[in-house]
Amino acid sequence: VGEKTIAILGDGGCGTSLALLLDGKGHHVRLWGAFPDYIARLRRSRVNSKYLPGVRLKRSIELTASLPEAVAGADVIVMAVPIRYFTPVAKRLAKCYSGRTPVLSATKGIAERSLKRPSQILRDVLGDAPIAVLSGPMHAEEIARGRPTIVALASRNRRLAGRLQEVFVTPTFRVYTNTDVAGVELGGALKNVIGIAAGMCDGLGLGDNAKSALLTRGLAEIRRLAVRMGARAETFAGLSGIGDLLTTSISPHGRNRRAGEQIGRGRSLREVLASTEMTIEGVWTCKAVHSLARRYGIEMPISEQVYQILFRRKDPRRAVIALMTRLPRSESERKRQ
Amino acid sequence: VGEKTIAILGDGGCGTSLALLLDGKGHHVRLWGAFPDYIARLRRSRVNSKYLPGVRLKRSIELTASLPEAVAGADVIVMAVPIRYFTPVAKRLAKCYSGRTPVLSATKGIAERSLKRPSQILRDVLGDAPIAVLSGPMHAEEIARGRPTIVALASRNRRLAGRLQEVFVTPTFRVYTNTDVAGVELGGALKNVIGIAAGMCDGLGLGDNAKSALLTRGLAEIRRLAVRMGARAETFAGLSGIGDLLTTSISPHGRNRRAGEQIGRGRSLREVLASTEMTIEGVWTCKAVHSLARRYGIEMPISEQVYQILFRRKDPRRAVIALMTRLPRSESERKRQ
Repeated sequence: VGEKTIAILGDGGCGTSLALLLDGKGHHVRLWGAFPDYIARLRRSRVNSKYLPGVRLKRSIELTASLPEAVAGADVIVMAVPIRYFTPVAKRLAKCYSGRTPVLSATKGIAERSLKRPSQILRDVLGDAPIAVLSGPMHAEEIARGRPTIVALASRNRRLAGRLQEVFVTPTFRVYTNTDVAGVELGGALKNVIGIAAGMCDGLGLGDNAKSALLTRGLAEIRRLAVRMGARAETFAGLSGIGDLLTTSISPHGRNRRAGEQIGRGRSLREVLASTEMTIEGVWTCKAVHSLARRYGIEMPISEQVYQILFRRKDPRRAVIALMTRLPRSESERKRQ
Repeated sequence: VGEKTIAILGDGGCGTSLALLLDGKGHHVRLWGAFPDYIARLRRSRVNSKYLPGVRLKRSIELTASLPEAVAGADVIVMAVPIRYFTPVAKRLAKCYSGRTPVLSATKGIAERSLKRPSQILRDVLGDAPIAVLSGPMHAEEIARGRPTIVALASRNRRLAGRLQEVFVTPTFRVYTNTDVAGVELGGALKNVIGIAAGMCDGLGLGDNAKSALLTRGLAEIRRLAVRMGARAETFAGLSGIGDLLTTSISPHGRNRRAGEQIGRGRSLREVLASTEMTIEGVWTCKAVHSLARRYGIEMPISEQVYQILFRRKDPRRAVIALMTRLPRSESERKRQ
């Protein structure tokens, strides 16, 4: 595989970890961030102290706050901005986007207002550009440290998926291709809400039996919605479904899980959001899920309780225990809900 | 629901936690153990210090080492002995079993020599008795302390399943019924081998990305074998599939996970087995899985590596890292293996 020039848009944990991975593989990496002051600080310190502390960014990684400079002549463009900034950044990209450069979204989430997936937003602003998505159990802290990771890369264009797979794959970063773009994106987005619920379970001290049951039912409800939205059910048995849900829900570092844990212990959403520089994607995705569940007429008891706790000040203990202790029914009835 | 007389065969963690649950609900519980000396000790101390320390057994729970005494006139018989002792205890039960008493197996495993599931062994020795099985994410330590738990209860006889559901259900112990007896039993048995692998991942310090990917692929391989053996695939998306795999693999208390963790840190199987009074079910199930995978011609890469590590002294680090870093393929190719 030849050496490529790769523009990564977004200097958060995800974008920075992919920059380290690709730079380590010998590609020429440009990492773009929206804030010139922060980029200047990164250039001096070579450590992304806010979003990925403790890891050195080699000099070979170019840092820039100019989007046109980042993407000029790039062979691949990676979108790694939080979902809240995805649409505006995609629009800025459209202004300097030329021709047929592959664009890979590593963003997990659903736009709060338009309810669109990242690849749908890219389609809207870039037309028929070659588009793919990357998702799966991929905590940035572990990728940055070379821990073994296996992810899913999806595109309707199989050849594009195969080419991008070759760009990313290393002995410890394995990439499986997939054609279910909607499933891979929805798994990565919706699991963050269940990850918050799993954290609440931890914060309330309910135990591992309860947490495992909650994750089982959580996976079932996000799959129900996703299938209704066009995803394939089997994708949720894979890396971008259960795999990603697991790493989000079991890792002590998972920010969605940790936010849920703090709320389970009695802190308010406002306090939790104020305590971190990181984006808690699940909080914003939760609003989108609430709207999607209504639009598609899907019952999502866990996501709905997370919504009530986060935005309607419902008591977490009452809500989570109510979820666990509903009337007995058969497993298949539960699934038919 | 009326008060029942329930004989629980097996005074390990599982049997004891179910005795506490059913006694708390007002049933008349008899707990049987094979060793008269240990039963005498339990009668004096009212604490099962070997298998469920820290929890008091009320006087209302009858303790006996006489199997005929335990089952005489019982309305329900619960089998909760380790899989290694299941066949001999079932044969002893057959000698004093009368007529139509429902027998519920809570044992998780596959008999090492006959390769039979607990309900198949019961069928062999008890003929057309009413048989059901109980499985799911149900760590005894948490059930004993009243933590919320949701389990699956399966029988081909729906009415029997419904009646047993009523016997067990409490506000914090929820029971879903299911008709896929093979799926529920195989989920509960096979997951212990993957739980050992998850523990090895922890012991080797590979991280949560790797562990989540391993669990995803582990669930896929045990489902493949189980479906080939007559189980329904969707059962593995439920409480007795992924739910049980999760609690086994994430709980610090999970004995299979913990055994794997110690082996991942360099201890030998002999040392690990010698260090505990508990049965590490996954070790014995692993041999059965090895034979079943051959018999049915199913590739089970993770279970096979666990077998090689446990019984062929293969180095865990080499084995687990090899699993994580195989050549890239598409997700569906991986599933077709």
